[in-house]
Amino acid sequence: MVQLLNNRSNSGDRVRRRAEGRRQEILRAAARVFRRRGFDTAGMREIAEEADLSPGNLYHYFNGKHEILYFCQDRALDTMLNALDRSGTCAGTVADRLTFVLTAHVRCILDDMEGAAAHLAVDALPGELRGHIVAKRDRYESGVRKLVEEGGQNGEFQVREPVIITRAILGSLNWTAQWFDPEGRKAPGDVAEIIAAYLIRGLKGDTRA
Amino acid sequence: MVQLLNNRSNSGDRVRRRAEGRRQEILRAAARVFRRRGFDTAGMREIAEEADLSPGNLYHYFNGKHEILYFCQDRALDTMLNALDRSGTCAGTVADRLTFVLTAHVRCILDDMEGAAAHLAVDALPGELRGHIVAKRDRYESGVRKLVEEGGQNGEFQVREPVIITRAILGSLNWTAQWFDPEGRKAPGDVAEIIAAYLIRGLKGDTRA
Repeated sequence: MVQLLNNRSNSGDRVRRRAEGRRQEILRAAARVFRRRGFDTAGMREIAEEADLSPGNLYHYFNGKHEILYFCQDRALDTMLNALDRSGTCAGTVADRLTFVLTAHVRCILDDMEGAAAHLAVDALPGELRGHIVAKRDRYESGVRKLVEEGGQNGEFQVREPVIITRAILGSLNWTAQWFDPEGRKAPGDVAEIIAAYLIRGLKGDTRA
Repeated sequence: MVQLLNNRSNSGDRVRRRAEGRRQEILRAAARVFRRRGFDTAGMREIAEEADLSPGNLYHYFNGKHEILYFCQDRALDTMLNALDRSGTCAGTVADRLTFVLTAHVRCILDDMEGAAAHLAVDALPGELRGHIVAKRDRYESGVRKLVEEGGQNGEFQVREPVIITRAILGSLNWTAQWFDPEGRKAPGDVAEIIAAYLIRGLKGDTRA
């Protein structure tokens, strides 16, 4: 009986894992469609085609494209919050930790297709879903700002306006989704490093001024 | 007879000026609606209400919200290109000239309501209109990049990747439309100066590193 229960449980896990894997494939397919067509013109039929599903089957996983966008954004923010958490365990300067976070942010946007959808069309989300994403995004922004402030306090950075500067930084990172060309000469990791290094230089200040 | 012709011509000018003024009012009203509701959910009826016009009268000036968005973006880019041109006549360092351009860019986005619509939803524009805006935007980006490169050549800046760094800068500026709160503590001019100074510091490089 115990054996039977275990078997059942394993089989249940397997089903859940398979469903979760399918959902992730759908999110990636949808993100490709969002990027290619824009969120507004993308349709569930096109997302189903891209994910190699019938439209009816797609609705079995998600209620509509707004729900898909929500899960894309939610996953991307989880990835970014995770990098923020891990940066806390790094040895090194505040600049090193912030570089780690900014680099992970750009990689999340450019490597993971869901990431590219993360900062698009939040306004498109209906009220409750939107509130959840905005709250998570605020939590992330506040974590980045704390690093900026910490560097100001320990003398690594020269920052008089951490709120505005943090938003200037995040804008620079988020905007990569608008112009990055996956077929271009630079890999996501290169772009991430170049931009992070530039943004950190601005924080350290110009000692020649 | 000459007098009569002059009168006619003056009256024609007056009509044209009045129509042009009306179009500008509509663009500003529409930009407020786009900002409040997002481009996709905004409707011509709502834009007409905001501009204090009947929907039928609104269609006398513009064929649809895509055309309105196009003119918002076109005007904003003209303002930015104009600042770029004027920067060429400034005395001072390349950093001074670039500061002038970056500050004008943020002010255009935050002061003029049309500016806020300038970097939203380009994908929403139909092919031909979109091509015109993208070409103008490329011209502007190329002008900013030339300043970045010029500073690199004369030793003011330390820039190895001017293309990517220019986009990092423009992203930071454009993103202000996403977070700026007109009711907040900072005026557009303050935000513009703080962000421009930070972005220029990053170009000058960190001499302590």
